[in-house]
Amino acid sequence: MEKLRETIDRIEFVDGSLAEKTQKRLDSLTKPQGSLGRLEDLAKQIVEITRNEMPRLDKKVIFTMAGDHGVASIGVSAFPKEVTPQMVYNFLAGGAGINVLAKHVGAKVVIADLGVACDLKAHPDLIVKKVNYGTKNIAEGAAMTKEEAVRSIENGIEVFEEKFASMGGIDIAGTGEMGIANTTPSSAIASIITGEKVSGMTGRGTGIDDARLQLKIEIIEKAIQINKPDPNDALDILSKVGGFEIGGLAGVILAAASKRVPIIIDGFISSAAALIAFKLEPKTRDYMISAHSSVERGHAAVLEYLGLKPLLDFNLRLGEGTGAALVIGVAEAAVKILTEMATFDTAGVSKKMD
Amino acid sequence: MEKLRETIDRIEFVDGSLAEKTQKRLDSLTKPQGSLGRLEDLAKQIVEITRNEMPRLDKKVIFTMAGDHGVASIGVSAFPKEVTPQMVYNFLAGGAGINVLAKHVGAKVVIADLGVACDLKAHPDLIVKKVNYGTKNIAEGAAMTKEEAVRSIENGIEVFEEKFASMGGIDIAGTGEMGIANTTPSSAIASIITGEKVSGMTGRGTGIDDARLQLKIEIIEKAIQINKPDPNDALDILSKVGGFEIGGLAGVILAAASKRVPIIIDGFISSAAALIAFKLEPKTRDYMISAHSSVERGHAAVLEYLGLKPLLDFNLRLGEGTGAALVIGVAEAAVKILTEMATFDTAGVSKKMD
Repeated sequence: MEKLRETIDRIEFVDGSLAEKTQKRLDSLTKPQGSLGRLEDLAKQIVEITRNEMPRLDKKVIFTMAGDHGVASIGVSAFPKEVTPQMVYNFLAGGAGINVLAKHVGAKVVIADLGVACDLKAHPDLIVKKVNYGTKNIAEGAAMTKEEAVRSIENGIEVFEEKFASMGGIDIAGTGEMGIANTTPSSAIASIITGEKVSGMTGRGTGIDDARLQLKIEIIEKAIQINKPDPNDALDILSKVGGFEIGGLAGVILAAASKRVPIIIDGFISSAAALIAFKLEPKTRDYMISAHSSVERGHAAVLEYLGLKPLLDFNLRLGEGTGAALVIGVAEAAVKILTEMATFDTAGVSKKMD
Repeated sequence: MEKLRETIDRIEFVDGSLAEKTQKRLDSLTKPQGSLGRLEDLAKQIVEITRNEMPRLDKKVIFTMAGDHGVASIGVSAFPKEVTPQMVYNFLAGGAGINVLAKHVGAKVVIADLGVACDLKAHPDLIVKKVNYGTKNIAEGAAMTKEEAVRSIENGIEVFEEKFASMGGIDIAGTGEMGIANTTPSSAIASIITGEKVSGMTGRGTGIDDARLQLKIEIIEKAIQINKPDPNDALDILSKVGGFEIGGLAGVILAAASKRVPIIIDGFISSAAALIAFKLEPKTRDYMISAHSSVERGHAAVLEYLGLKPLLDFNLRLGEGTGAALVIGVAEAAVKILTEMATFDTAGVSKKMD
């Protein structure tokens, strides 16, 4: 618990003192004021987060965390739970969507086992921070103990901090996950924290049909009824209906904020982790960049609760950090606009007439 | 006129025969089917355009064309018309938004003078295909002669073809433009072709106030009234209310389609050029990728008319090809998904349960 407390204590508000200067610089560049829209907003946010007037995004990392879910055994997912370790091996071999997209934007993918249900074969790129062998079935009781909930977050913080140290800093990070059935705990978390109905926060995940969707909703409703999580206690929610990779990602978000690193929140499951991080420390919110509007039902309401506006709307629903990887490319573009464009004065271009 | 006819004659339908095979490959990749949404659609479109099952986007070019507009002299723009040549010099010096964003995605920017109102200083990277020294004021008569309209399109075709030859092919291209006041002819073209009211197709361009916006609408209405363009004759529309860079970009679009090169349409002005190209040869439509939803009023209606769905919504309104450049990065990501991801079989990942 100490590591978690210390990390939260280190999180400061983002620095608004550079806002005016950054706006002035953006307005001095050879373009009509504000004409690069959200790229300009993003550049400003990154300056405020990093306290660097001319940031560079060289060290780019996607943290993809894996965990299993007891609830997978009762038919809430379209894929069998063996797929969790299989996909971790696929990540390590470089064949998954996240590998391709992260490589495309020059980002490193960090793969961590927070709670896969089996022992994974050792691999030089696999970080093992296993809290337990999958969560328990939330339809029958708590997913994990309160100690395990804390440990999952602290393990996520450790993964971030170790990578931060070994890389000599991180300029921008993204979240990603793998865990068969993990939209189920995510919908539960989203429903509890936003106060929205379970049916409005539950979608088809990897592609279940109507009957399974109905079952999934009933299971989540039952999980909330049985476990009675306190909607104002993030650790209680995480322990009762959460997942180890979700806790791990909440830790990554807290650690990123504590180090003043912009953190791109991928899709629905990552946003559930963002809800946990936000509930633990609301200041984390201003460090978050929402990657995209997921197809998964409920995602829009979660982002609205967090006050985040997604950048992309590509009908993505893969997870892994794929949307976050795409947005790393956008964030780099935004920062380059701020730092590489000529000004009206240096380029000898006439300004707007009044 | 011969070059234009020949180019149009060479344009074929995109090739649907690879669609099934491509879909099969996408569905064999280690992800739930369809879970990469619009990236998958884009990959399919690029296969159909290029007839290449495993395309690579190495040779990437943004064609940024410049021209001046007689109507600029009567106060429709927020910037003086000297800015057109000034910005061309800025492009050539590498300081503009398009330079920064094209470099970010590894694309070359081709700068062509289709009709700037002065003689530009020679520069090794400047392609001079000037049709005339700016168009005439459309509120008083035709912007250009019919011969000039044809020549502007043919000059655009030449720019594309010369670059295509010198680079040994082009894998993907984007459109961009610079021309103070060029939202005015674009709104006129958009209104005439879509049949929408001028007031619904006219926006603030680089940032005019309410009074100037009203003036701009009245000028466009007057231009249409005086010139009486035939809504079914693209050359008539271009000559009466168009612009040289708009004709040039229509030529780039036609040439790209004739060479089976995917062409990314930037914002509002580029979309007006796309309307001209589409009216000349409707088959061009399937070669087009809409980059983004511009802030400029009327853009959504133009895209709807063309049946195009923009990829990004970043509140951009700079032009130059900046949105197209961002989407080159997205298109590359899409193609890499198709060509670089592992399949369920090779990765040993279990498939969806039924």
